[in-house]
Amino acid sequence: MKRRTSLTLVVMSWWAATVSATPLSDETISTAKQLRDEALVGSRAWNIVESLTTEVGPRLAGSEAEARARAWAVTKLASYGFENVRVERFAMDGWERGTEVAEIVAPFPQKLSITSLGNSIATADAGVEAEVVLFETLAELMAAEVGSLSGKIAYVGHGMQKTQDGSSYGHFVRLRSAGAVEAARRGAIATLIRSIGTDSHRMPHTGNMSYADDVTPIPIAALSNPDADQLERISARGQTITVKMTLTPHYTGVVESGNVIADIPGTDLADEIVVIGGHLDSWDLGTGAVDDGAGVAITMEVLRQIKSRGLKPRRTIRLVLWGAEEVGLLGGYAYAKAHKAELRKHVIGTESDFGAGRIWKITRNINEAAAPVADKIAELVEPLGIAPGSDTARSSGPDLSPLNALGFPGFRFVQDGSDYFDLHHTPDDTLDKIDPAAMDQNVAAYLVFVWLAANSDVSDWGWTVAE
Amino acid sequence: MKRRTSLTLVVMSWWAATVSATPLSDETISTAKQLRDEALVGSRAWNIVESLTTEVGPRLAGSEAEARARAWAVTKLASYGFENVRVERFAMDGWERGTEVAEIVAPFPQKLSITSLGNSIATADAGVEAEVVLFETLAELMAAEVGSLSGKIAYVGHGMQKTQDGSSYGHFVRLRSAGAVEAARRGAIATLIRSIGTDSHRMPHTGNMSYADDVTPIPIAALSNPDADQLERISARGQTITVKMTLTPHYTGVVESGNVIADIPGTDLADEIVVIGGHLDSWDLGTGAVDDGAGVAITMEVLRQIKSRGLKPRRTIRLVLWGAEEVGLLGGYAYAKAHKAELRKHVIGTESDFGAGRIWKITRNINEAAAPVADKIAELVEPLGIAPGSDTARSSGPDLSPLNALGFPGFRFVQDGSDYFDLHHTPDDTLDKIDPAAMDQNVAAYLVFVWLAANSDVSDWGWTVAE
Repeated sequence: MKRRTSLTLVVMSWWAATVSATPLSDETISTAKQLRDEALVGSRAWNIVESLTTEVGPRLAGSEAEARARAWAVTKLASYGFENVRVERFAMDGWERGTEVAEIVAPFPQKLSITSLGNSIATADAGVEAEVVLFETLAELMAAEVGSLSGKIAYVGHGMQKTQDGSSYGHFVRLRSAGAVEAARRGAIATLIRSIGTDSHRMPHTGNMSYADDVTPIPIAALSNPDADQLERISARGQTITVKMTLTPHYTGVVESGNVIADIPGTDLADEIVVIGGHLDSWDLGTGAVDDGAGVAITMEVLRQIKSRGLKPRRTIRLVLWGAEEVGLLGGYAYAKAHKAELRKHVIGTESDFGAGRIWKITRNINEAAAPVADKIAELVEPLGIAPGSDTARSSGPDLSPLNALGFPGFRFVQDGSDYFDLHHTPDDTLDKIDPAAMDQNVAAYLVFVWLAANSDVSDWGWTVAE
Repeated sequence: MKRRTSLTLVVMSWWAATVSATPLSDETISTAKQLRDEALVGSRAWNIVESLTTEVGPRLAGSEAEARARAWAVTKLASYGFENVRVERFAMDGWERGTEVAEIVAPFPQKLSITSLGNSIATADAGVEAEVVLFETLAELMAAEVGSLSGKIAYVGHGMQKTQDGSSYGHFVRLRSAGAVEAARRGAIATLIRSIGTDSHRMPHTGNMSYADDVTPIPIAALSNPDADQLERISARGQTITVKMTLTPHYTGVVESGNVIADIPGTDLADEIVVIGGHLDSWDLGTGAVDDGAGVAITMEVLRQIKSRGLKPRRTIRLVLWGAEEVGLLGGYAYAKAHKAELRKHVIGTESDFGAGRIWKITRNINEAAAPVADKIAELVEPLGIAPGSDTARSSGPDLSPLNALGFPGFRFVQDGSDYFDLHHTPDDTLDKIDPAAMDQNVAAYLVFVWLAANSDVSDWGWTVAE
């Protein structure tokens, strides 16, 4: 009985919240619906990602190509009539891919398809050739004794499966981050991992890694999933496997990255900010269509739609096209530092950085005062097939996570990422994988979000003191 | 009325044929059914292709790897109890892939994913850099004036779509064969083509090409479909495109290939042969799982099943694992030449060389006398979902086409190849693409075919005089 009573109370309080006087004007709601419906008919989001991926292509953090992407963004936003576009530059340590080849020398000679993880050191120019010791999981590697891999190449597998919300990535990506360090700690001279990906194509997945101060760095590369299968099949035959691998990436010293920022200035609450965006950098293997040209395009299109109609929001709607996300959320940290004094003026915000699939749910971590606004957002995007989700840890996307860590409230539109980790960080992240209609659905949802958040009576969505 | 009467006559003659005394004993039919049903429960075909693709991997025609594949086949067949396994060697001109890189230099710098076509000459070591002239089709290239591409790189696209029977390949592959010659004839210094493939992955499709005596050879490579899209999108912006490409393949002189042959000797009609097989060589980019490890495995398993049961067919059932198919059906021609004296003893046969998908129809070109046997084969494989197809040109598969050209009757099991040209000649032709149950269905059908063909009263299926 007690549980039933609690449930009734919860339901009643939800109901009460949804029927109470809304902190949103009828005009705000009506405009949001109109923006939403017109976006669904067909937005220009696809054309924007087409332009970025075609005219710039791959845009590695800190590279000349990423600088071209910033120039592209500035020009494109200016063409939409934005007069306040600026680039907030920051310095970073550069890294570039080199040659990356590997082969099974014995028992069954054949080439392997590999790619360096970002930030990996190089092998010797002539490569490294050694016996491979196979581990099923990172945990199994970590259970091996220190020194036990002396002179060997460590290979580590895993069993990552597709998920709609991408939630298993956080677990499995630990292997990419920690693989080289844990293998080196045990004496290995190089590391191979199964790609952190869910496809079965001969395309290895890159992604960032880092070293630990107390361990000598060793090179690390990812095998495509079919190549990892092959290595495991050969190992199952009980024969010693010798692999030769050559990686020649190099560090490029201190280089420049930057965030591109454009605002639609607010009216009576102009110093308050609603922020959206995507990240402008991509890995170098593909053209960064789903990661994160799509997020860039969706959020640019949102601002273009509002701007082109001459609509005047109460709060400032800010677009941040983040730089150097892939190599450690550098744009996010740079922004948090540069805007330290006015962080609390960021009322709410969210980043689009999970591909180009349809949004299927909302997660949020906000206060009671903002719930009616968020509920109305949920109500208006429900016709797009989007369900309200449960509250979660404060999360507004990767580049806003430095703000979340300082107490910024959380809001996300969760995209269907069932195939996201098929493409993520591979050469196959290209425009052809994007469905324009799914992008329009995203644009429609973000328009509802920014328009209601920028025009409601609620300025405090629940900043907390950092934990 | 006339048409109805004709139809009735056709139906009656069909009915008469199917109910007339069959040239097959009840025991033959009963054994075929048993073989079929036991294969469906689970054959070892997948294990065979697993073994070949794992323990040998890629096996380019004329390479050391193809020699290892022959050794693998000899060992594997010996392990099944075959005592008459032999290799019929032949000489061929060798070719090996080298470096293959390309990039758009202007207007939008980015790398392109390419692969040399088989037999292509190299570029200069430092590569070739030139303006690209785009053509939508081979026909459009051929309409260009001689000399009009002087100093340029020719790019040629096409619009190949997926088909279930693969029938459009014959049309579109003409671009791969003729692209370099036709571009060179018009003055081009190199050629790029859209891959002859139906996928949208960053994996270019290789495949053989040849030069003409009256034209100076120029190098040729294929772009992956997404890269071809990219080039065409950039071209649509009206800007001059400059590409740099470097290919360093080389010819390896006269090398050795060979066909591996094993027989189940016949009894009273031992000098008559029913021949099946697949080709042992593969392109070097993948592990040749669907092209043609699957065909090798399906047909090896058919012989293993018959052998392991100690069954004695009237005619000799011959397995030929063809060598060097990919570079011009060299194994097929070598066999036709080596066995010239006894070609007419080859009663009927067929090659499995269209992937690992399920068989969905039969095509045949045979005489009236053999129709009852072929009809019974069709009847017994109908429970496998296989429909009789219409008669066609004499076709028994690529490596038997030299025999077909001499009048050998045609018979094929047509596999579902809807995704065959997604994988064909790419790095992605690997084991993970194969469904073991579909292979079992193939084994079941081939068992019915060989058992009925080897035991019927019909020795003449309709050899004709070569046209």
